[in-house]
Amino acid sequence: MNATEQSLLHAFSKKSSTVEDQEMPIRPLNASSAEKPEIDVAIGGLFDILKAEKSVVEKEPEAFRQAVGNILERRLFYNPSFDIYGGITGLLDYGPSGRLVELNVLSLWRKFFVNEEDMLEVGCSALTPEIVFNASGHVKKFTDLMVKDEVNGAFHRADHLVKGYCESRKKDVTISAEKAAELDNVLAVVEDLSAEELGAKIKEYGITAPHTKNPLSHPPRPFNLMFQTFFGPTGSSLGYLRPETAQGIFVNFMNYYNDNGRKLPLAVAQVGRVFRNEISPRQGPIRAREFLLAEIEHFVDPENKSHPKFPDVELLEFLMFPREEQEKSGQSAKKLCLGEAVAKGTVNSETLGYFIGRVYLFLVHLGIDKERLRFRQHKAKEMAHYAADCWDAEIECSYGWIECVGIADRSAYDLCAHSEKSGVSLVAEAKLAEPKEIEKLVITPVKKELGVAFKADQKNVVEALEAMNEQEAMELKATLESKGEAEFEVCTLGKNVTIKKNMVSISKKRTEVRKRFFTPSVIEPSFGIGRIMYCLYEHCFSTRPSKAGDEQLNVFRFSPLVAPFKCTVLPLVQNQQLEEAAKVISKQLKSDGIKHKIEITVTLKQIETISAYIFKKEQL
Amino acid sequence: MNATEQSLLHAFSKKSSTVEDQEMPIRPLNASSAEKPEIDVAIGGLFDILKAEKSVVEKEPEAFRQAVGNILERRLFYNPSFDIYGGITGLLDYGPSGRLVELNVLSLWRKFFVNEEDMLEVGCSALTPEIVFNASGHVKKFTDLMVKDEVNGAFHRADHLVKGYCESRKKDVTISAEKAAELDNVLAVVEDLSAEELGAKIKEYGITAPHTKNPLSHPPRPFNLMFQTFFGPTGSSLGYLRPETAQGIFVNFMNYYNDNGRKLPLAVAQVGRVFRNEISPRQGPIRAREFLLAEIEHFVDPENKSHPKFPDVELLEFLMFPREEQEKSGQSAKKLCLGEAVAKGTVNSETLGYFIGRVYLFLVHLGIDKERLRFRQHKAKEMAHYAADCWDAEIECSYGWIECVGIADRSAYDLCAHSEKSGVSLVAEAKLAEPKEIEKLVITPVKKELGVAFKADQKNVVEALEAMNEQEAMELKATLESKGEAEFEVCTLGKNVTIKKNMVSISKKRTEVRKRFFTPSVIEPSFGIGRIMYCLYEHCFSTRPSKAGDEQLNVFRFSPLVAPFKCTVLPLVQNQQLEEAAKVISKQLKSDGIKHKIEITVTLKQIETISAYIFKKEQL
Repeated sequence: MNATEQSLLHAFSKKSSTVEDQEMPIRPLNASSAEKPEIDVAIGGLFDILKAEKSVVEKEPEAFRQAVGNILERRLFYNPSFDIYGGITGLLDYGPSGRLVELNVLSLWRKFFVNEEDMLEVGCSALTPEIVFNASGHVKKFTDLMVKDEVNGAFHRADHLVKGYCESRKKDVTISAEKAAELDNVLAVVEDLSAEELGAKIKEYGITAPHTKNPLSHPPRPFNLMFQTFFGPTGSSLGYLRPETAQGIFVNFMNYYNDNGRKLPLAVAQVGRVFRNEISPRQGPIRAREFLLAEIEHFVDPENKSHPKFPDVELLEFLMFPREEQEKSGQSAKKLCLGEAVAKGTVNSETLGYFIGRVYLFLVHLGIDKERLRFRQHKAKEMAHYAADCWDAEIECSYGWIECVGIADRSAYDLCAHSEKSGVSLVAEAKLAEPKEIEKLVITPVKKELGVAFKADQKNVVEALEAMNEQEAMELKATLESKGEAEFEVCTLGKNVTIKKNMVSISKKRTEVRKRFFTPSVIEPSFGIGRIMYCLYEHCFSTRPSKAGDEQLNVFRFSPLVAPFKCTVLPLVQNQQLEEAAKVISKQLKSDGIKHKIEITVTLKQIETISAYIFKKEQL
Repeated sequence: MNATEQSLLHAFSKKSSTVEDQEMPIRPLNASSAEKPEIDVAIGGLFDILKAEKSVVEKEPEAFRQAVGNILERRLFYNPSFDIYGGITGLLDYGPSGRLVELNVLSLWRKFFVNEEDMLEVGCSALTPEIVFNASGHVKKFTDLMVKDEVNGAFHRADHLVKGYCESRKKDVTISAEKAAELDNVLAVVEDLSAEELGAKIKEYGITAPHTKNPLSHPPRPFNLMFQTFFGPTGSSLGYLRPETAQGIFVNFMNYYNDNGRKLPLAVAQVGRVFRNEISPRQGPIRAREFLLAEIEHFVDPENKSHPKFPDVELLEFLMFPREEQEKSGQSAKKLCLGEAVAKGTVNSETLGYFIGRVYLFLVHLGIDKERLRFRQHKAKEMAHYAADCWDAEIECSYGWIECVGIADRSAYDLCAHSEKSGVSLVAEAKLAEPKEIEKLVITPVKKELGVAFKADQKNVVEALEAMNEQEAMELKATLESKGEAEFEVCTLGKNVTIKKNMVSISKKRTEVRKRFFTPSVIEPSFGIGRIMYCLYEHCFSTRPSKAGDEQLNVFRFSPLVAPFKCTVLPLVQNQQLEEAAKVISKQLKSDGIKHKIEITVTLKQIETISAYIFKKEQL
């Protein structure tokens, strides 16, 4: 669904009564079977009015965004990095207020997740050798499709161009219903299109490079989003900056599993900067090249994804947008009961459901407007290469619905991949409810006989015999019993040898097994801290006239947990004694760790203009 | 001074009484004028004993380090990153205990510095465009000199090789006093030697590649220690990972200065990962390629480096090692009074002194042994390219004296460099005590006359007139007054023109000035958090036998502020009621934010073996 579509729909419905009046002239014309040109003129007039209305509505989120953005940058919540050198798109610095908000959000996150759920918090390297991302699939699959401006060489994301084209065409109210439906269809799948499909759309629509209108390269080519670098001076040891923190946890799985007393579930948390080399970063704090992720890797037994604390969240009701609903046209997120969504299988496990519920509570606790927060399930083709199921916590802001937390069931994908690549077993164990008897194949080469027969080749023959799978072994046994000998291929020697009955004993033995070994599934809630903060800023922002009415004041109505400063201490009148008192109060607040400002030089009259941070007091 | 020298001296003095006994046979021999061969034999015997003693002493720190390192890795304070793939030297992951210690250290750091001193904490990008490090000098000067194994192509740090050679030669007790003095001299300056000087030493000493003994490339070549990467898909936009957090603050100076109400001093703090592409990282957690720095940039008026809170620290006494003392041989750090060191000019300003005092208090508060903490002043040649004065807080551990905090006066170096490169003025202002009258040059071109005379060239002539400096202007004025006209060079036109008296008015005007503008100096305390943590581990570590005496127990006697877990809750006997009580206590601790462990399955007998974390209780 288009990002700003819902906001527009809201605004449109408000405007509809006005438009209703304008429609009046057409009805009598239709009723009286007027001539077509006459109707066209009337319709044309209506379209003009509609267009004007629409352009006003469209400008609203942009004007709002500009107002918020200006104050955020002026008050140094964030600002473009390296601004004195013209900056680098996609890089932001957090100034004093922004950093305080970030620390507050992280502190709440730790309390809410790490402490409450007894998670292990770790800190892994951001620099990562190539082999790790080869195993995880990021070298091959963590790519965006791009096209090149054939004249100036600038690169553009192919999906962004197609999306931009469709969105802009849709604004043309004169297009036919069929065309509109087609554009909607393309928008719904644009992120899932292959290079060929995207290339075809660019050709079909005659899309050219933004601004320059130059022709574009064809077909789109994948560009890896990881920043590359090299270890050491030789330039031979390729590395990447992590695009997510998760891999550091996966490769350490056995360490953390052992540290947790070899028990599941095991939840490992990590907060850290990640790096993504976006082709054309835009939307300021929403799509940055370096940003903070707070990730949880919750490892569970794939045979038991229940969660003991699920009852704590099962009665929650909030906006959810399951996959099937998104496939029907014209649908939007609906309030569902979490317990029912899990019971019906809409959400595939209690554990996934539990984290969805906890993420909801966390975001609302921070101050996110729950009417502008929805959980949207990924469509099958949309999911990352590692995901088995995924729900995004999306928050609506002036940029549309923005993915702020991804809650994915990565299944056993990553542990299996690393286990295979490294040759190190990454498994957990569970006691069986009852011991189980199993038949075990026992192959015992008789080394004495083999040594006599094969001399220097003995070792290879022994290894080949021991490497047989059950079927091969049982076939060999049958042949040896019926014929006394058998031809046997030894790959490492590149030839067949003749094995006699006395050279190997093959049997099946019944043994009792008390444990089973398995690769755990991982449920991963992954929080984009910068995006959450930005949406929070928008949800907390408003303007109001000053008391004198001569000025527009900007207000961030933060929750006290999030507010960078909890209060300002200031004397009511300029007076030596009151100044001293203010300093004593400030000192006390400081020693209690309450972040505040002190303004000695401000008089009562000026108080209003400095109350940039207002918040509810109940929680201080 | 050699890293482990002091530890060795301590140990040697303890051993001296034993050696005293061994020396006895020589004295009678000397006294009786024995034959030389006889004396040589006796001396040889003594040397053998001394060598054996020395090798025991030398092994002690290594054995201790191994014991600490094993338990730190086993308990996941840290472990090598990407271990299942064989790891990458210089990269470490912090496991659950290490991360908790890190968070505790940072929390104390924030309280001790950021909050107490009302600093602005910010968070800047680690990814940095090339131009920033061109300006700061890092592209040219942030290098190590390296040599290459001519056969296998491996790189080595030239200074490490020379240092290693000298240290190993010094262990040979048969070398002459002159030779020993020479080696000491080289060791004292090895970090300051140029490529040519290092190359000459390598040749002179016949140093070959470690292990392989292959010849080395000559002369040593500089290798930049920053990790390189590229922004965007074209590969044309070069960037680096920051090797320190400071530059992000410098380029934002005007933002933070304005945010601070345009007042100095202004202190900006930043905690963040930094990256250094060490040629041959060693010493585990001491020299990592990715590590956490906590930096403070304290901007002051260069004309006033006093500090209002200096009296709070001036009576402190601790080990200091000024530059001049290091140049005398055989000296070590001595207890000095901080106030006196500043008064005598040993420490060059109150502000630098204040931070030295605060760093001392912070480290001791963390649990660093104050007898193994010294403040060593950098020698003139040793200082970083940007520093005007620098004191390192060095902590002694099994690796020797390790720089853990650098407290540098970077003067105005960085702000000037960025101002020049970017063209953006990075200055502060101060009100003058009294307004000052100054003479100001006023050049007023008479555009009407110039327009008539020079038509299209008028603009260039006007600009050239306005660009004159005081001397040029006064000379022109004199010529015009004496001759009525003057030849005048207009560079932008590439020719001389004739200026007449009526075309320009030149005068000096007296004006009153109330402010002065200046580039602030910056005092920078920069904390290597990982190094501090590692030294802390060593200082807190001891072993003791278990009560039964059958086992050696490892103990970290952490301060409660630093301890990853504050306590363990466990029932004294296995009993359903006590288990429930333990759970209630644990829940209460959790809601109070007190990190702890709960052990339901452990019995009284086993308590001793799990008490890995012991700490003083007074501060809980």
